[in-house]
Amino acid sequence: MIIYIDTPLKAREKERINKYFGDSYQVYFTDEFKNDADKVDAISKADVLFGNPKPALMAQAVSAKWIQLFTAGFEYYQDIKTEAIVTNMDDYYSQPCAETMVGGMMALYRKMDVFGLLKEKKEWIGAPIRLELKLLEHKKVIILGTGNIGRRVAKILKAFDMEILFFGRTAKDAAMRTSDELTQKIPWADFIIGCLPGTSETKGLFTKEMIEKMNETAVFCNVGRGNLVADEDALIRALMDRKIGGAVLDVTASEPIPADSKLWVCPNTILSQHSGGGQESEYTGLVELFLENFENFKEGLPLKNRISFQKGY
Amino acid sequence: MIIYIDTPLKAREKERINKYFGDSYQVYFTDEFKNDADKVDAISKADVLFGNPKPALMAQAVSAKWIQLFTAGFEYYQDIKTEAIVTNMDDYYSQPCAETMVGGMMALYRKMDVFGLLKEKKEWIGAPIRLELKLLEHKKVIILGTGNIGRRVAKILKAFDMEILFFGRTAKDAAMRTSDELTQKIPWADFIIGCLPGTSETKGLFTKEMIEKMNETAVFCNVGRGNLVADEDALIRALMDRKIGGAVLDVTASEPIPADSKLWVCPNTILSQHSGGGQESEYTGLVELFLENFENFKEGLPLKNRISFQKGY
Repeated sequence: MIIYIDTPLKAREKERINKYFGDSYQVYFTDEFKNDADKVDAISKADVLFGNPKPALMAQAVSAKWIQLFTAGFEYYQDIKTEAIVTNMDDYYSQPCAETMVGGMMALYRKMDVFGLLKEKKEWIGAPIRLELKLLEHKKVIILGTGNIGRRVAKILKAFDMEILFFGRTAKDAAMRTSDELTQKIPWADFIIGCLPGTSETKGLFTKEMIEKMNETAVFCNVGRGNLVADEDALIRALMDRKIGGAVLDVTASEPIPADSKLWVCPNTILSQHSGGGQESEYTGLVELFLENFENFKEGLPLKNRISFQKGY
Repeated sequence: MIIYIDTPLKAREKERINKYFGDSYQVYFTDEFKNDADKVDAISKADVLFGNPKPALMAQAVSAKWIQLFTAGFEYYQDIKTEAIVTNMDDYYSQPCAETMVGGMMALYRKMDVFGLLKEKKEWIGAPIRLELKLLEHKKVIILGTGNIGRRVAKILKAFDMEILFFGRTAKDAAMRTSDELTQKIPWADFIIGCLPGTSETKGLFTKEMIEKMNETAVFCNVGRGNLVADEDALIRALMDRKIGGAVLDVTASEPIPADSKLWVCPNTILSQHSGGGQESEYTGLVELFLENFENFKEGLPLKNRISFQKGY
C-alpha cells in the first residue's frame, strides 16, 4: 500500500509515522520530491493521501481510496471529483481558534498589545491608561456561525455574562438567519465575531453596509476566512477613521498581509497572523488523528470526520 | 458640612459632585491646595473624607464622621486610629482585575504581545508561530485568595474547563490552607495566580522555595500586591533562566517599575502596570458609589462596605 503525505510535519512526527508503518507500507513525504512532476507520479499511485496538496496535485490522486486532510476547511477543492473517502480535521482547530479570538478581544480591551510595546521600550504609563481599558462583562455579541468555533467562543464569553446572539442559516437557536436580519441587528452589537468556514455562501457575507451600521465602539473579529469581509478596504477605512472601535483579525483577504497594507497601521487592531488554529502539540495531534483513522481504514470500519468536496461539508 | 475629596477625578466627575452638593455643603478638592499645610487645615475640619490622602494627612482627619476610600486595599492606614466610620470600594475593582489577569494569561499563551510587536514592525511570521502557542483548556490552576478577585478569575477560567484549586486561610472550599500545603502543591500547577490583598499575613507569602518548586512551563500571575512575592529577584532569575514558563504581573515590588529593572527584559512576561482595576467608567463609577453611600450617611442609614483600618478587613 502506498501512502503519500503532504503536511508540514517536523522530524519527530515523520519518525512517528515511519515507525508506525514500518516496512509493510511505502510512505512518501512530499518534501522528498524535487518537482511537481515527481510528486504527481507518486500521488497518482497512492492508496492513501494525508494532507493538502495544491488542487492541481490533489486532482491527480486517482488511485486514492482515502484522503485525510489536515485542515478543517477545504473550499479550494470544491472542483475535485474523487471516488475516495475524504475526511477532514473537523473540530481539531476549534478550541485554539476560540482561544485566539477571545484572547484577541481581551488583549484589545485590556491593552495587552500596548503593554507589550511599552515593555519593549521600558516605558511606564500606569494609572492614566486605566481609563482606556474596557470590560467584556455584560457586552453584547453577535457570533456569525453556529459551528464548533462559534460554540466554543460562546462558551467562554458566557463566563463574562455577555449577551450572545448567533447568526446561522439553519441552527435552531440562531437569532438571525438572513443577511437582512443580520444587517438590522448590527448596531446592537459591541462585538461581531466571524466564525464561518469558507463557502460560496459565506464569501462576502459581511458587507460594507454592515460595517457602516456598526456602532463607533464596536469591534469586528474574524477567525474563519478572510473573504467573509466583502470589502476589506471599507473595514480599513472604518478603523483608520475610528468609525468603529477596533478589530481582531486572525484571517485577512491576503495572507501574508502585504508590507504595504494599511492593516498594519490600523489603530485598535490585533493581527494574529492566521495562528488561530495553532498550539504546541498541533502536528503531533494531527498525526495521531490520522493514525487513529488509518486503523479504522485498515479494518474497513467507518472513518471519522467524513466530508464531501462538492457538498462543502 | 465640610467634605474633603482626595481622589484623581476628571472635570466631569468634579462637576457631578459640585452639582450634587450645591451650596449646602463646603466641598474641597485636594488639588485646590498648594501645600500639605493648607490640606491639613481643611482635612482636620472635614466631616466627610472621600479618597486616600497619604497616611500622614489621613491621620489629620480628626473631625471626620465618615471616610470613604476609593480603593479596595488600605493596608497603609493600619496605624491610623479614627472614630470615623470607614468604607472602601470592596468589589468595585474585582471584575477589571480578573479580566486583566485572564487577558494577560491569554495574551501570553496566544502571543498577543508578540503580535503587537510584529504589527509595529509590519512583520509577518504566520505558520511557524503556531507551534509556540498554548491552550488554557484543561490546564491546572492554583488561585491564591478566595476573595472577590479570585472568585471572578475562577468563574472565567472554568469556561476553559481548567482544574482550579484555591489557597485560603479560612474559606471552606480552599484546598490548601497553610504555606506548607501550598508549597507541596506548587509543582502540580500550570498557573499560580495571586489575588490576595496586602496584609501582614500575605506579605512575602509566595516564597523563593515556591518559585523553585514551579514546573518549567508554569506561569506566575499576580494582581493583588507586589509584596506577595517574598523575593522578586528570585522570580526575575527564574524567568531569565527559563526555569519557569512566564509571568503576568499587574503588581510588582516597585511601581513604577524602575527603568533599570530586569523585569522589563524578562522573557514570556506580561507587565500590565497596575492597570488591573481600571476601566473607562472607573472614576464615574466610584463617584456614584460615594454619592450613594452619602445618601445613606445623610439619613443615618448603614453604610456600604464598612472596614476597619486596624483589623485590615
